[in-house]
Amino acid sequence: MYTLYARNQAGSMAVEALLAACGADYRVIVLDRKPDGSFEDFFHAINPKAEVPTLILPDDSVMTESVAMMIYLADRYPEAGLSPAADAPDRARFLRWMVYMGTTIYMSDLRLFYPQRYTTATAEAPGIQAKAEEMMTAEFAIYAAALGEGPFILGPVMSAADIYAAMLCSWVPDVPGLFARHPNLKRMYDAVVQHDAVRKVWARNEMTF
Amino acid sequence: MYTLYARNQAGSMAVEALLAACGADYRVIVLDRKPDGSFEDFFHAINPKAEVPTLILPDDSVMTESVAMMIYLADRYPEAGLSPAADAPDRARFLRWMVYMGTTIYMSDLRLFYPQRYTTATAEAPGIQAKAEEMMTAEFAIYAAALGEGPFILGPVMSAADIYAAMLCSWVPDVPGLFARHPNLKRMYDAVVQHDAVRKVWARNEMTF
Repeated sequence: MYTLYARNQAGSMAVEALLAACGADYRVIVLDRKPDGSFEDFFHAINPKAEVPTLILPDDSVMTESVAMMIYLADRYPEAGLSPAADAPDRARFLRWMVYMGTTIYMSDLRLFYPQRYTTATAEAPGIQAKAEEMMTAEFAIYAAALGEGPFILGPVMSAADIYAAMLCSWVPDVPGLFARHPNLKRMYDAVVQHDAVRKVWARNEMTF
Repeated sequence: MYTLYARNQAGSMAVEALLAACGADYRVIVLDRKPDGSFEDFFHAINPKAEVPTLILPDDSVMTESVAMMIYLADRYPEAGLSPAADAPDRARFLRWMVYMGTTIYMSDLRLFYPQRYTTATAEAPGIQAKAEEMMTAEFAIYAAALGEGPFILGPVMSAADIYAAMLCSWVPDVPGLFARHPNLKRMYDAVVQHDAVRKVWARNEMTF
């Protein structure tokens, strides 16, 4: 059984949805932060970065990094069809955009929501937040251009990358604005959350869609 | 044939070394930046982020994101033994640390070397560089703890992740300091650059080891 340490609507949401979509045997442990923002000590011992998602595999080994989990789990359940095989023509495209999201949009999100983590300045984090929003806007534009007619990043077939992309869309400060600029992102989002397993996990995360 | 757009000693170096170690048929095109720091227009057309590495696959499709390339290429050449198969026990560990490096140490490197990219402030980027160095130090400590006795991140067997880790080690402002704090990183580095293909590519990148 997989154990996923999670927070509602956080980076764990896509991994949880993928576990569900793969039909994996899993449980979710929702963590709360302490008033100072940290997690309980036991969690720091499991993951030195003390971040969700943290995934405990059936062999009790610990996995971190949501992008790694998305690739790993999708590949482990080939019958779910949520990643192209290593020798499939779409494999490079799948990995490219999966990693792209993790190293661009997700990172911009972190600087947007936690700017003070990225400077030694103790006063208001100077210009980091504004720049993060600017970069995220450009990064979504690149993703939307790659998505094209879609509806999914690999065309007609939904993959783990779309679940991840949908989660990232849900995080932007102005979702209607994003969808107005990029109707194909909205089309992708709507298609992803129509998937039974995804819809249930979105609801468990108290998403209002 | 693969075509790799590269700059010496940049993020392309690990991908180039992996292509060589896999015995892939490839060529390298070394790009120079224009005086204003941008690349030639043709390159912006290939990759909207205009970053090296950019990889053109044998089917002419374009791939970006060095971490994605490392996973993709290692999986495409299973006979080279540079990534565990999708159902191998070490697969999760390989993906975890591969993605970890791309989303932590590599990102801290970018903030360290290009702090002005991360703020709208036009004056000296305030505290971003100092914080990036602090974070990178902590991120290397986590990686070194995971590496343990090594010599490689998967134990006795070198993988694409080690080539990537060696490249990241070579980028820190104080390499001897890093290796003094973490002798196991030095041991890993020395073992990676002893690999014939890696050594040749390091030399072509004008590395002095």
